[in-house]
Parts: sequence; structure tokens; C-alpha cells
Amino acid sequence: MRIAELSRATGVSTTTIKYYIREGLLPSGLLTSSNQARYTEDHVHRLRLIRALLDLGGLTISRIRSVVTALDDPDTTFDPCAMTAEGSCTGPLAPLTADPRTVETVRSLTERRGWDAPVDSQEFATVVRLLDVLYDLGQERFADRLDDYAAAAERVAAVDEEVLRSCDDARSRAESLVVGTALGDSLLSALRRLARTGRSTSPVSVFVTSGASDARS
Amino acid sequence: MRIAELSRATGVSTTTIKYYIREGLLPSGLLTSSNQARYTEDHVHRLRLIRALLDLGGLTISRIRSVVTALDDPDTTFDPCAMTAEGSCTGPLAPLTADPRTVETVRSLTERRGWDAPVDSQEFATVVRLLDVLYDLGQERFADRLDDYAAAAERVAAVDEEVLRSCDDARSRAESLVVGTALGDSLLSALRRLARTGRSTSPVSVFVTSGASDARS
Repeated sequence: MRIAELSRATGVSTTTIKYYIREGLLPSGLLTSSNQARYTEDHVHRLRLIRALLDLGGLTISRIRSVVTALDDPDTTFDPCAMTAEGSCTGPLAPLTADPRTVETVRSLTERRGWDAPVDSQEFATVVRLLDVLYDLGQERFADRLDDYAAAAERVAAVDEEVLRSCDDARSRAESLVVGTALGDSLLSALRRLARTGRSTSPVSVFVTSGASDARS
Repeated sequence: MRIAELSRATGVSTTTIKYYIREGLLPSGLLTSSNQARYTEDHVHRLRLIRALLDLGGLTISRIRSVVTALDDPDTTFDPCAMTAEGSCTGPLAPLTADPRTVETVRSLTERRGWDAPVDSQEFATVVRLLDVLYDLGQERFADRLDDYAAAAERVAAVDEEVLRSCDDARSRAESLVVGTALGDSLLSALRRLARTGRSTSPVSVFVTSGASDARS
């Protein structure tokens, strides 16, 4: 198909398609003349992937470039953390010094749950950093429920793994890992908000009604 | 304290502090002379909150402005969705038309789980949109596990609610809701990655080893 058809099939403008090609996110089409190129269903799929990671996964153009480069190279090894939304796993972690007590809290959590997470991994550092910030903001109430959040996260990780294991080949598994990590975070976040709607008459009443309480507290 | 001390206490540069004041994220200090202002512990706390939402929650400056404006007005009603990371709940949802089958899938999910989520709410639309994109990308494997992800999300929402209910007053509840929503998403996402480390020898092997399987599949 020509670029105009590719644009119609995906809803992405030709200007943007050309931008993605220049930025290395999308392979060039097959040149059929000096100023015309042909595109395939692979381009349609890749464009959808780019838009999903950009619009729904919250990834930046440069991060998507790393992800698709890795996807295109079957021999590559890449870290799922690179696929996370900006500002969470990949936030600026270096400047602050982790509180040793928080490191111990997370280390003991991973031990309790049988997670094999090295203390020097990025995932580990991210959890420590988030807890330190929660303490810093006086939100230890959330930090104190770490085991409950960890249990829910473990359940999600177990489903993730079953899904990934059901993929037929390494390539589809790699793409599933990318999409499942980036969009899965957004899905969980949306489901968490949706689940809250069933737990109170309205989200606002949760904090506006100061006398709210029931037998379950 | 003076601005230099505020900067030292929070690790935020004086230029950035002045930028936050201009952008309406941080209240001005109390002017003690024509070119000097005094800041309080409230400024320290507010700056920490801004940095947490920015660096770890992935919110933009303009979204943080809405959040702190709402926090400062005890009579305001605001939507927790406004506090989500960019690109998930707040992604550009309008242009695509939702597949009626997906709407029905989500409606029947909310019914099964007893969630009181209006079909026209943003949370509902976000879940529909994410599922549609997963189908579009050939990742129906994830979409098919919606109930499992929903169960995990429900567990998280229940903990959220217990934490919020334990807050002493409306103001602390509002801030907990903001921080818990934004940083809680990042925490869950990091815990999910951390939990995965306990489930395979390395994240890479999940998709590189094509013959991976065990009794649990």
C-alpha cells in the first residue's frame, strides 16, 4: 500500500508516519520509484504498536525507539524496565540516598515472598525510592500496607507469566512482554479506579465526607 | 526560612522554586522586604509533593497545578482520574470509536464484580480503550485475563480504601488520595516487575527461551 493508505488504515497522518521513519521507529517502505514507497501489513502493525505505547503506555519517542530496535533484533537482551512509563521505574533515581531501613524493608519483603530480586536491580531501587518518598510525604499509611500491595502485584505477575508462556515463539513473546508491561500498567491503573467506584458512592465522598466509616474499617 | 534554606531542605534549586511559584504550584513566601521572602515547613512539604508527583508519579506541571489547586480548596470536588500518570487514564480517548462488544465485555465485568461504574465514566472508557488496543495489537491473551487483572485491582482498591478511611481529616484524606493514586500506580508497577524476578531466572529468559514451560501452565 502507499503511504496515504497506510495513513488511512491507522489514523496516523503521513507527516507523522514520515517523522517516525526519520526517528527510526518505523522501517522505511520499499522504494518503487524515486519518490514512492510501498508499505505492508507489518507497517500497519508497527504503527499501531507505536501509537499504543505512546498514547496509552505513556512512553516517550526515544524509549519506543529502544523498544522497537530491541524487538527487531532477535538476539538482543533487554530489560523490561526500559519499557515502563516515564517517571515510574525510569524516574531520576540517582540523586537521593536510600534510607538503609527502607532497603532492609524491601529486602525482607522480597525474602518473605520468595522473590529473587537483587538489591542492586532497578526494580528494587524503584520500590525503595517510592517508599522513601511516601515516608517523606507523611504517607506511611500506604507504605505500611506494602505486603498487601505486593500480594496483588504478585498475582498480576503470575498472570503475566502465564500469558507470556502461552506465546508461540520468542518474537511474539517479546512483543507481548512490551505491550503487557506498558499497557498492562495502564490497564491495572484504570481497573483500580474502576474498582474504587464499587466501594463508595463516589470517589469524592471518600475524602469529602469526614465522618465516613463502616463496619469494615 | 529563606529561599536558599528551602532549596537546601528539599534539594530543589532556587530557580526551580521560583518557577513553581510563577506556575502557581507553590504559594509565594511571606514578603519580609522588597526582595526577600520567608518560607515555612508547609513549603517544604508542598515542594516534596510536587517533586514526588513529577518525578515518580509522572504527572505534568499543568496537572500538578490542578491537583494542588484542588488540595488547597477544601470545597472543591475533583476527579481522581485527573491525578493519574499521563498517557493512561488521561490519554487521548476521543478519536477512536469503542467496539460495542468491548463495551459489553467491560459492562459485564463491572456487573460481575459489583462495581458501580457508569458506562460513561472516564475509568470505564479507559478500560474499553485499552482492551480495544490490545485486541488491535493481537494481544487478546492479556485481554482474555481481564478477570484476573480485575481481581488484583480490586484487592488494591480495597487496601486503598482502608488507608483513606484511616485518615483523620478531609484534608489529609485528599492528599492521601492524590499521592496514593499517583505514586501507588508507580509502586504497583515496580512491585509487579519485582515479583516477576521471583518467577523466572531472568526477565529475558521469559521470552528468549522458547521451550520454557512447567507444570503450572
